[in-house]
Amino acid sequence: MAEQKATNITWHEGSVSRQERQKLMNQKGVTVWMTGLSASGKSTIACILEQMLLNRKKQAYRLDGDNIRHGLNKNLGFSAEDRAENIRRIGEVAKLFADAGVIAITSFISPYLKDRDAVRASAGTGEFIEVYVKVSLEAAEQRDPKGLYKKARAGQIKGFTGIDDPYEAPTKAEIVIDTETTKPDAAAKQILDYLERGGYLAA
Amino acid sequence: MAEQKATNITWHEGSVSRQERQKLMNQKGVTVWMTGLSASGKSTIACILEQMLLNRKKQAYRLDGDNIRHGLNKNLGFSAEDRAENIRRIGEVAKLFADAGVIAITSFISPYLKDRDAVRASAGTGEFIEVYVKVSLEAAEQRDPKGLYKKARAGQIKGFTGIDDPYEAPTKAEIVIDTETTKPDAAAKQILDYLERGGYLAA
Repeated sequence: MAEQKATNITWHEGSVSRQERQKLMNQKGVTVWMTGLSASGKSTIACILEQMLLNRKKQAYRLDGDNIRHGLNKNLGFSAEDRAENIRRIGEVAKLFADAGVIAITSFISPYLKDRDAVRASAGTGEFIEVYVKVSLEAAEQRDPKGLYKKARAGQIKGFTGIDDPYEAPTKAEIVIDTETTKPDAAAKQILDYLERGGYLAA
Repeated sequence: MAEQKATNITWHEGSVSRQERQKLMNQKGVTVWMTGLSASGKSTIACILEQMLLNRKKQAYRLDGDNIRHGLNKNLGFSAEDRAENIRRIGEVAKLFADAGVIAITSFISPYLKDRDAVRASAGTGEFIEVYVKVSLEAAEQRDPKGLYKKARAGQIKGFTGIDDPYEAPTKAEIVIDTETTKPDAAAKQILDYLERGGYLAA
């Protein structure tokens, strides 16, 4: 589905280089890719991280499965092909934000290694930070804030990650957060510290 | 193609409101949608406008047909359906940038009224500024910097806008620029002035 179809196109270098833009913004654009089971705490941590960054006058923007599906990806369903295309598009949009100098924070279950690795490969080196938001299926099911696990167990939702569809845990995540032992604030701070140490919060 | 397929989703209000973000950035996010024939001058004007905005410490980002087709829309060709989906996706991405407080500048031929109006409808009121970059076909063909009109006339490119595919001029563009009488710098300044008068360059 993602093969190159368009022809007669050349890469267009804008008048503003990425370096100039980063200097103006005093930060470096990057994709912070959070992955984990439903109810692992991805969105909560993403919201707090975004707030922390904005409080420090850093530009950050959150792409979230719950809201992106109403717009860009509203013509995608939950088939294997559509799930892959969903992740691909989000990766490309995050890459555009990163190119714009923004810290793009994505919080999607993104259960398949292959799809996440494709996004990593598309991003430049050092421009993709994978955050594994780890939780046991047991704990996630106990939280179940939206009652989705219950529905999946009852067979009302098909292909639900962890129940009747696999979650493939990251093998080379830059950051691993166990949300059974780490509170959301501390988790967000852990990512913020990583960004600071990595030099993303300066030009 | 763009019907709502996904279910079990609710709009997710982030922890940072759009108003808070605009206040922090001292500007309002908006989509500046440039439309016009190939060689009308869209990209040149867009580049200058982006530079002018960044020089004033305003966040702007340019989405361009030439570069977006290598990423987000690389799985789209030039069929009528794919052209519509191309414009739809770009509109949705511009909307995300505008939501992030950024002035998104898009420069695509975007020849069909219907497609542009769909993007306008998807954007909020006052969040879509259509800029008609006007040029006669004769003048565009004379410029022909990439030799595309020549190829289209020779039948080497099919479905080329203005030659064997229609360009539907805007009927309610917020800004009209005639590039046969207006230089790129002056055109960009005209858009900048519109943004300033409209209050987009302040919170």
